[in-house]
Amino acid sequence: MTTDTPPQACDLLIEAGWVVPVEPHGVVLEDHAVAIRDGVIVALLPTREARARFLAAETVSRPDAALIPGLVNAHTHNPMTLLRGIADDLPLMEWLQGHIWPVEGAVIGPDFVADGIALSIAEMLRGGTTCANENYFFPDVQAAVYKRHGFRARVGLPVIDFPTAWASSSDEYFDRAGEVHDQWRDDPLIATAFAPHAPYTVSDANFERIRMLADQLDLPVHLHTHETAHEVTESHDKLGQRPLARLDRLGLVNDRLIAVHMTQLNHAEIELCAQRGVSVVHCPESNLKLASGFCPVGKLRKAGVNVAIGTDGCASNNDLDMFGETRTAALLAKAVAQDASALDAASALHAATLGGARALGFETKIGSIESGKQADLVCVDLGQLETQPLHHVISQLIYATGRHQVSDVWIAGRPKLRDRVLVDMDSDALIVNARQWRARIAAIRIS
Amino acid sequence: MTTDTPPQACDLLIEAGWVVPVEPHGVVLEDHAVAIRDGVIVALLPTREARARFLAAETVSRPDAALIPGLVNAHTHNPMTLLRGIADDLPLMEWLQGHIWPVEGAVIGPDFVADGIALSIAEMLRGGTTCANENYFFPDVQAAVYKRHGFRARVGLPVIDFPTAWASSSDEYFDRAGEVHDQWRDDPLIATAFAPHAPYTVSDANFERIRMLADQLDLPVHLHTHETAHEVTESHDKLGQRPLARLDRLGLVNDRLIAVHMTQLNHAEIELCAQRGVSVVHCPESNLKLASGFCPVGKLRKAGVNVAIGTDGCASNNDLDMFGETRTAALLAKAVAQDASALDAASALHAATLGGARALGFETKIGSIESGKQADLVCVDLGQLETQPLHHVISQLIYATGRHQVSDVWIAGRPKLRDRVLVDMDSDALIVNARQWRARIAAIRIS
Repeated sequence: MTTDTPPQACDLLIEAGWVVPVEPHGVVLEDHAVAIRDGVIVALLPTREARARFLAAETVSRPDAALIPGLVNAHTHNPMTLLRGIADDLPLMEWLQGHIWPVEGAVIGPDFVADGIALSIAEMLRGGTTCANENYFFPDVQAAVYKRHGFRARVGLPVIDFPTAWASSSDEYFDRAGEVHDQWRDDPLIATAFAPHAPYTVSDANFERIRMLADQLDLPVHLHTHETAHEVTESHDKLGQRPLARLDRLGLVNDRLIAVHMTQLNHAEIELCAQRGVSVVHCPESNLKLASGFCPVGKLRKAGVNVAIGTDGCASNNDLDMFGETRTAALLAKAVAQDASALDAASALHAATLGGARALGFETKIGSIESGKQADLVCVDLGQLETQPLHHVISQLIYATGRHQVSDVWIAGRPKLRDRVLVDMDSDALIVNARQWRARIAAIRIS
Repeated sequence: MTTDTPPQACDLLIEAGWVVPVEPHGVVLEDHAVAIRDGVIVALLPTREARARFLAAETVSRPDAALIPGLVNAHTHNPMTLLRGIADDLPLMEWLQGHIWPVEGAVIGPDFVADGIALSIAEMLRGGTTCANENYFFPDVQAAVYKRHGFRARVGLPVIDFPTAWASSSDEYFDRAGEVHDQWRDDPLIATAFAPHAPYTVSDANFERIRMLADQLDLPVHLHTHETAHEVTESHDKLGQRPLARLDRLGLVNDRLIAVHMTQLNHAEIELCAQRGVSVVHCPESNLKLASGFCPVGKLRKAGVNVAIGTDGCASNNDLDMFGETRTAALLAKAVAQDASALDAASALHAATLGGARALGFETKIGSIESGKQADLVCVDLGQLETQPLHHVISQLIYATGRHQVSDVWIAGRPKLRDRVLVDMDSDALIVNARQWRARIAAIRIS
């Protein structure tokens, strides 16, 4: 480039004190800028060069901030945000059967799903999350709400062996899955995945049908598995196989599989996941809160398994805070592995961004700040007291930053949060709506 | 009370949507108010009654907030906040010997201590912490800085078997300890404790001297112990006793002992702590980050041991966020005990307030909202998106609230944070000062 080169037009130039592109790994670029055109990153370069090279329609300058890729929440049940804290301090099955399922049974439907997703989108944006791997009923409603708010998501197409408000038979689950997939197959923001609930709630026949369709439609399979010791023991006792062995017999252990939780894994299972390109979604806070167990993140990483991070639903977490979740993942992995380097700060950030993108099959689109990728970007204000002094940017992002330090968020180049204010959502209306749901759920529980 | 009773004067009336007094346990009082006179809580009653009964010089009304006792950080090294993130992802001894100690050696002194404490006070206030159990060198400087900012603290009087910037011989450690204790013995905000560093750095003779002086002066003994398996094994190999057995032989296992970390405990040791009234300070994030191990909080509570929460220093955490730390404690205890009820939300809040107060010997002064106690109080805004819908107040405080939702803080009835703004500290000046330390420490590390 010479000084004679005429400046190129771009829509947006974001200048940051530091850019952490995630790829290359562990790199921090000081005083760099990202140029965006048509929602796509066209350049990442020193701010001084960027000002000479680009003529931007808009420039956002954040000298005290780190610019990072948007965080990818690789496992969540966002309608359940409306159930935040209705039942705590209980083991998985008692929590599900005694509390969550009865309340869900009374409220579930398109309104519950739409309102829960909208509240969750606002919370995710305010915390630097730009993409969710959604897993709940009514994926048609989910997809429409995510799309309306310009939020990137892969919505799960549920399959479970009993009737729900979404479908009453296996055929209906598959029919509705096909319809939702068809509707969104070419959307730039919304994609789908098969979401069989869990090994203990889905039959061999349905898993086989999922495998066949997932291959045909080129879709991931998003599945809770090896969540608790009970699940693994019960499978072994009833079916003579651990869940992962059964899934392997059914042809599902491959690079389409998004295996969520995975707190119970032996050495051979870890090796199998590595060989087959399975992605593991680690949900540390849900696993702790439900006393489900500890995912062996250090061993998975050493074996070469792709690890992503998910919050799980707000009923078992109780937030959608990917900064907090990633911090917990980084801390917990060390004690579980008895190795303080088991998940270092840069690798934790990788899991929360590019690791999540890869799990969702979005690794060519998002997860890092590279030319040609979608401009899903987050500014984090490191100038606050709580992140001073600033000895290391990535350490600060993982171990000291709170989600309230997220100042600005873009998805596909569109502003979603600006100086902590939601650009196109009404916070007050969301809170009023949440309060109405509180009253409605309280009435159900009393009656 | 009849309507004829003339209203009583008070200095401050705080009206909150909810008051969580901590004692009685698990109680949430809706639309209640706290009346304060001369820094002391004089009444906790329904807001409507409070308005009739008290004529307040100032009224603060927070209908969307929960009012809770100020959080007690029961173990911290606040000068080390200036070292936040200088070395991460390393085991305890490599971290201490290879990174922390060399940098400390170059910077330690009254300025480092004073500036680190001031930055920490600001961070603690912004996060709802009103009392710290401080453990570092230069307790004279610490005490003066805490006092200047009206922050409640117990400062540790260090004893360690090698020379440091604070003292060069055992006699000098004890002489200086005596001087600092004498200076602050009658202060309403500042108290002292003996702070022998750890079993592996303090001789029997010095421990015996501490026991004698602690009894004479009626002081707690604040000690890191059973932090790692290595510490316990090494003690057994070298001295033929595990550290707690050795401390028992030396007469230190009693209700003065503030035992910090305690990740390695057998059944008999847990019973011993319960019988003797030892308080355990659980620092979950530091234990995870340094891969030190898991404190058996569920077993300790079942045995009747008082459990408090501490952040440890910012070099191993990397924050002073007691909301985050308490949440981690509540989550982690469940998975460690394999029991989702091991540390429920109300008990976690107790540990972070009254449990900490009891560990520090302050249980008659602070830790709960009761008449006669000091008005160390915190308002937490639960009206934000992230804590909606509000099904259960205490669940929300422990599992969903971020420290940035702390709106107001009082210590002994004096306002310290008002609507998120520090009342008598200059944030900008603190940040400028932290940046100067960053540059100074970077220069040391390069040289």
